[in-house]
Amino acid sequence: MERNTYDFELEKIKKLIKERGAKRVGLQLPEGLKTVVTDIAAEISKDTGAEVIISGNSCYGACDIDEKLERIVDVLFHFGHSDTFSHSFGKAFLSKKRFVLKENYQKKVFFIELRSGVDVKPVVEKAVAEIKGDTVGLVATVQHVHALKEAKVVLARFGKKAVIGKSRLKYDGQVLGCDFSSAAVPCEEILFIGSGSFHSVGLALYTGKRVIAADPFTMQISIYEAEELRKKRYMAIARALDAKSVGIIVGMKSGQFNLDEVIDLKKKAVEKGLGAYLIAMDEIGEDKLLGFKVDAFVNTACPRLAEDFVHFKKPVLSAKEFEVVLGERSWEDIFKLFSFKNNGCF
Amino acid sequence: MERNTYDFELEKIKKLIKERGAKRVGLQLPEGLKTVVTDIAAEISKDTGAEVIISGNSCYGACDIDEKLERIVDVLFHFGHSDTFSHSFGKAFLSKKRFVLKENYQKKVFFIELRSGVDVKPVVEKAVAEIKGDTVGLVATVQHVHALKEAKVVLARFGKKAVIGKSRLKYDGQVLGCDFSSAAVPCEEILFIGSGSFHSVGLALYTGKRVIAADPFTMQISIYEAEELRKKRYMAIARALDAKSVGIIVGMKSGQFNLDEVIDLKKKAVEKGLGAYLIAMDEIGEDKLLGFKVDAFVNTACPRLAEDFVHFKKPVLSAKEFEVVLGERSWEDIFKLFSFKNNGCF
Repeated sequence: MERNTYDFELEKIKKLIKERGAKRVGLQLPEGLKTVVTDIAAEISKDTGAEVIISGNSCYGACDIDEKLERIVDVLFHFGHSDTFSHSFGKAFLSKKRFVLKENYQKKVFFIELRSGVDVKPVVEKAVAEIKGDTVGLVATVQHVHALKEAKVVLARFGKKAVIGKSRLKYDGQVLGCDFSSAAVPCEEILFIGSGSFHSVGLALYTGKRVIAADPFTMQISIYEAEELRKKRYMAIARALDAKSVGIIVGMKSGQFNLDEVIDLKKKAVEKGLGAYLIAMDEIGEDKLLGFKVDAFVNTACPRLAEDFVHFKKPVLSAKEFEVVLGERSWEDIFKLFSFKNNGCF
Repeated sequence: MERNTYDFELEKIKKLIKERGAKRVGLQLPEGLKTVVTDIAAEISKDTGAEVIISGNSCYGACDIDEKLERIVDVLFHFGHSDTFSHSFGKAFLSKKRFVLKENYQKKVFFIELRSGVDVKPVVEKAVAEIKGDTVGLVATVQHVHALKEAKVVLARFGKKAVIGKSRLKYDGQVLGCDFSSAAVPCEEILFIGSGSFHSVGLALYTGKRVIAADPFTMQISIYEAEELRKKRYMAIARALDAKSVGIIVGMKSGQFNLDEVIDLKKKAVEKGLGAYLIAMDEIGEDKLLGFKVDAFVNTACPRLAEDFVHFKKPVLSAKEFEVVLGERSWEDIFKLFSFKNNGCF
């Protein structure tokens, strides 16, 4: 990942540090950007005199603020995600009494969105060959969301209509791994501009549509079929149907904690005659779950993580998927409800 | 690990919960005991009515309190480690202004030492054959520390003198992975009663003596030679001698944080012309370090972890070892200073 691929907004950052007289500055970046963070730290330190502390922990989203780091710095710059919390999505989120979010986080944490300067037109042109219908829902991560209109023009040139949906997030057409409200538009397929499979898989699962993913950096086009992906989730649920006991994972990351939901879920499980145990975790890994003597796990942290855990020996379900096991939700309702109005996470 | 191997002090725990009217109770256990924790949680929940939340995170010592869990429970029971903080070792520790330790932790966190009921006599008898000299320093983890006197009697029967040293910890003869003060006794070898290699390796490294490790559960005797182990550390230091840049890891676990030390170390590194970057981390793993463009790492969290990281591609040194690279400490001084009076961690 080259540093000049993204706009790190260093001048803005340095200005802000000076204006605030910040002595200690935290930097938090997604894994792929750790290669450039030392250069950034050196520049900030040299030009502002501030002591820079880099978060070495994983960083999966705006829900994943390094709050221990936040506590010991004057300002924390969180790169690669948009400020989720000042928009309708985030307001619902904050209202859930998530204890970890401190009031002062809003004064201390600054989101640097890392807008990409890459030209999306070539990859959109390439993607056209994969579009079967006439209308696509056009979405992107925050890095490319400013280029969606340009992409729309390219598609029109090829006779394809693109709909950029309103969202609960900061920008129209923007998607998060856990919010696809901007993809809820009348369309036959989804065209996603961005990297990795996290967003594409979620888009396919929760819209039920075919997703064409176009990566403007690698020029790679990937296709995600909803049915195939949903089948894997149904299989995970099926594996958990005979469980006598479950470990309900309480996500302790700043924006993933929701104890009320977890306690409620446990109550329902116990009423159905299951043994149910609450397990508080920061980073979820199979090595940490292996020891627990339960038949299945329910992950109430980032709901999308359940998909990453399909290779685990024991089934790991999302909260909504577990409600199917409990007989509280129909199989069809998992993705329908999850996707738009009532996100599984919130 | 069988539940009846250790004394979980459940009656005491339940009484305390009732007396305090605690509604939410946290349980934190070392990895190996996760197999029994659901049974314990069920019993506590049934007999007290409290909501029990189990920590699913790793737990390496009394320095590693799950403080996010601590924040959301009324009491937290931390199993397997002794209360380090009310003794001289811990007082020095608390005086270092480690930010993570809240004042109320002392009111909320209870240490359940998990005394073992296993008979240590058979394994001590077996160990005698491996003792070359006449006098051993006799040490144990907190699980077996109450059996040291018994072990001493067995050794006397075989004509071996055992010295149980005073320590800075709660009990004479007790060792931690980072404190071997009780092994600073006149003796030819060390006899350690306990499991795993963490304590034995440290004992060999920091006393410079041959360590006979006797595991009363498995009846296995293992030998640790100081020279061999020290050589590995010297090699790690040698690998870091040409480093142009270092990542200095700031341990964010409750009892491992010491920002003053870290900033001081960084200053020294910069004065020597090195690029130096502060990296804050909870759980240290090679996957999280790979991205950083530096030539070596300095680990200021648990100093003993550097030994676990010998297989990492880039050298990872303890703070004291890094001082050798900086020319501030002689190679001979790493273990001498570390071991007794002035522990690297504190």
